[in-house]
Amino acid sequence: MANVITYGTYDLFHIGHLRLLERARELCGPDGMLTVGVSTDRFNWEEKHKQSVIPDSQRMEIVRALRCVDRVIPEDGWEQKRDDIKKYGIDIFVMGNDWEGKFDSLSDICRVVYLPRTPEISSTDVKNCIRCENGQGT
Amino acid sequence: MANVITYGTYDLFHIGHLRLLERARELCGPDGMLTVGVSTDRFNWEEKHKQSVIPDSQRMEIVRALRCVDRVIPEDGWEQKRDDIKKYGIDIFVMGNDWEGKFDSLSDICRVVYLPRTPEISSTDVKNCIRCENGQGT
Repeated sequence: MANVITYGTYDLFHIGHLRLLERARELCGPDGMLTVGVSTDRFNWEEKHKQSVIPDSQRMEIVRALRCVDRVIPEDGWEQKRDDIKKYGIDIFVMGNDWEGKFDSLSDICRVVYLPRTPEISSTDVKNCIRCENGQGT
Repeated sequence: MANVITYGTYDLFHIGHLRLLERARELCGPDGMLTVGVSTDRFNWEEKHKQSVIPDSQRMEIVRALRCVDRVIPEDGWEQKRDDIKKYGIDIFVMGNDWEGKFDSLSDICRVVYLPRTPEISSTDVKNCIRCENGQGT
């Protein structure tokens, strides 16, 4: 059993988001819990300088509705992760491997795992697909 | 307890989809089941003349991952609903009220309910929002 945490924006919720969350849930075992930090609109806009299409309250509601997710919390700043890990008794911190190496500094308080992302799908891909009006393409 | 069924494309999965599914699940009671028919790409393209952004296999996988959904089936034609209602022992057929009155002919074999949609959100709205690059707007 392990308590696992991961973070993301989950804008335009897609299969890549779901599969990463389900793989994170597998690391919990049957009695562990998966906590998901969902980036707020304020954090995205003021600190990451990107605007989400879907408001944070709706992004959180969708992630919370997934069978594989046990708890959803707002993520409102870069420095929050270390506090969350302590607060929720986290054993494993999980991110997609596009962040490989970026959070190794947290390995003094928990295990840090980077999971492979689903190839050829991202919120940016979905947006570009819609902008080009190509439908689902090839 | 009731067995409930609903149908949709669930393209670019959004809060309007989720809330309608959760309201449909409430009609089941604790021991009923919610079955969701997800329109195939073939049905959408060849019979409804619209192309989904997200492929049907991924749309089905996302709907199946929701806590409120018990069973997902492909919907591949207009005439399938009557057979599904008999096959799955359905008590209540649910659609959004944009379809008000359109499926009343099924009321000889089950209860037909049209639920209110979430205002100001649809897959078309999301697509238009992205095309205009307005982010989440007002």
